[in-house]
Amino acid sequence: MNSPRPRLDPAVAETRLAVRDLLATALDDGVVAVGDLVLVALSGGPDSLALAAATAFEAGKQGLRAGAVVVDHALQAGSEAVASRASRQASELGLDPVTVRRVTVGSDGGPEGAAREARHASIADVASATGSRLVLLGHTLDDQAETVLLGLLRGSGPDSLSGMLPLARREPGPAYGRPLLAVRRHTTRQACAAAGLAPWHDPQNDDGTFARVRVRNALMPVLERELGAGVPEALARTADQLREDSAALDHFAEEIAEDIAEHTEAGISLSVRALAANPPALRQRLVRLAVESEFGVTLSRVQTLEVCRLVTDWSGQGPIDLPGVRASRSGDRLSFSAG
Amino acid sequence: MNSPRPRLDPAVAETRLAVRDLLATALDDGVVAVGDLVLVALSGGPDSLALAAATAFEAGKQGLRAGAVVVDHALQAGSEAVASRASRQASELGLDPVTVRRVTVGSDGGPEGAAREARHASIADVASATGSRLVLLGHTLDDQAETVLLGLLRGSGPDSLSGMLPLARREPGPAYGRPLLAVRRHTTRQACAAAGLAPWHDPQNDDGTFARVRVRNALMPVLERELGAGVPEALARTADQLREDSAALDHFAEEIAEDIAEHTEAGISLSVRALAANPPALRQRLVRLAVESEFGVTLSRVQTLEVCRLVTDWSGQGPIDLPGVRASRSGDRLSFSAG
Repeated sequence: MNSPRPRLDPAVAETRLAVRDLLATALDDGVVAVGDLVLVALSGGPDSLALAAATAFEAGKQGLRAGAVVVDHALQAGSEAVASRASRQASELGLDPVTVRRVTVGSDGGPEGAAREARHASIADVASATGSRLVLLGHTLDDQAETVLLGLLRGSGPDSLSGMLPLARREPGPAYGRPLLAVRRHTTRQACAAAGLAPWHDPQNDDGTFARVRVRNALMPVLERELGAGVPEALARTADQLREDSAALDHFAEEIAEDIAEHTEAGISLSVRALAANPPALRQRLVRLAVESEFGVTLSRVQTLEVCRLVTDWSGQGPIDLPGVRASRSGDRLSFSAG
Repeated sequence: MNSPRPRLDPAVAETRLAVRDLLATALDDGVVAVGDLVLVALSGGPDSLALAAATAFEAGKQGLRAGAVVVDHALQAGSEAVASRASRQASELGLDPVTVRRVTVGSDGGPEGAAREARHASIADVASATGSRLVLLGHTLDDQAETVLLGLLRGSGPDSLSGMLPLARREPGPAYGRPLLAVRRHTTRQACAAAGLAPWHDPQNDDGTFARVRVRNALMPVLERELGAGVPEALARTADQLREDSAALDHFAEEIAEDIAEHTEAGISLSVRALAANPPALRQRLVRLAVESEFGVTLSRVQTLEVCRLVTDWSGQGPIDLPGVRASRSGDRLSFSAG
């Protein structure tokens, strides 16, 4: 008789399956190849700790090596101890190499933005040093829902509404994978508990000066109480659809841009007739795309709409000066030059 | 010396300007012509009462006649008195004709849905009887924000997220205009007060069994407290952008459908190769559009994704039976027949 096989905790199974799927996609898409090193970005919190455990279990089965990078933001007393504890946990899980990086966080872009910038730079640096082309991040479905809600409430448009990508390539630097985007946060806590892993509790998660923390602690509970459970899932589902819509529009914009854009001595120009024949959402994307590709400048919605009036409300008006770019119309051409 | 001209209340000015703009657009677009009758759908509440006052003032200046339709849902004691009071107010404002319709509300689609159905049918009927091709509705920016938030929290997709249209044509029946979609609710209250109009207070607006009322009374205040003022405006702005995106994708779907759809004896078929070459958001729209146009059936997202797997995950699987429609693949054709 066989001895009974210990039952696998459902939370552990769910996180492993999520990591397995993401790694398979990354291999299929050529983001990584067999033998490559995948890095887990580890804070020591429940999300990234559950991710580290699942990656340690799954990577080898797909012929990948798994390591970790721990970033010490040095913003709180005892941060060094937190980082070295997380690093020890990663090593005990079998991750190798495990790198700890201590960074200096500036103040540009607010406390959250500055910490994110410093973390990303440091992670990209470790990825480069270890030759890793894929970094896994521990964002969960709840993080995705919070991102969507924050974007929505700020009116910052469909791009931010569409949330975080499960697998994002950025050049230069490594690709970023988020295997847990469809996994609830409480599942990662449960997975840690079931595996006997003690996660770190980040006191910043209770700091109400962060908009995201207020969304998490004050807003989400009210939403779920007033509209029923399932709100985070609904938000994440919406993000999926918006991401598809945005990608499709970007696809068409890029296709059309090839036909209607002409490089000029001073910069780039677009056919007014073609811009006018396209729906507003496409026209705006074509304008943004031209300016972005030629000058590396990202126009705001208000600026984009102003430029589009040179197409739709033309009465011979003069050029529009935008930061770094000048837009002007002459006959059938809408031209952009360095300004 | 001239006697000083009384200062126009800013709230009255704002509602009048909003109505003026909408009527001008409706005339430009050929929805109405000079001499036509425009109907205000009047409940007697502050939004529609302010709308009635502004329309009474503006319509004649653009060569239009203005009337009103008051629907008595007969759901509350005293509803008849409310309706006749609103009708009297409309007449005193100079609207003519003013029609009161008493309707019977069924129970299909929940209490809110059933009341809306009955109201729409009744309004369309009065529009037809009076020869009106444009009905104005009193929805405000706050209503738009609540619609977006409800859609988002239900995960019901970009279409519901994109909210209500300022000017919607529906065939058959009149067009619907919403001049106040960029006007805050408190502005309509102020406009009524400034004009000496006493609006009716609908007790249903305090009835927490309605999801919309909970969004309005419990959620919005928390959102504004936690994330700062301007949340309703941000939500409405998001709706504008999503509406543009959706319209652009619908535009491309209709254009592409002409090239890749073929009518068959049994129904309609699409080219698998063409579906596969398009981004997911387009592929899904093409499938939905084909089924909608041929069988009048609207597929859910889950059903649409299932059909799309016949394109993207093809391993010779059998047909998919959907309510009223059967989807099957044979070679390069994805076919739909009555099921």
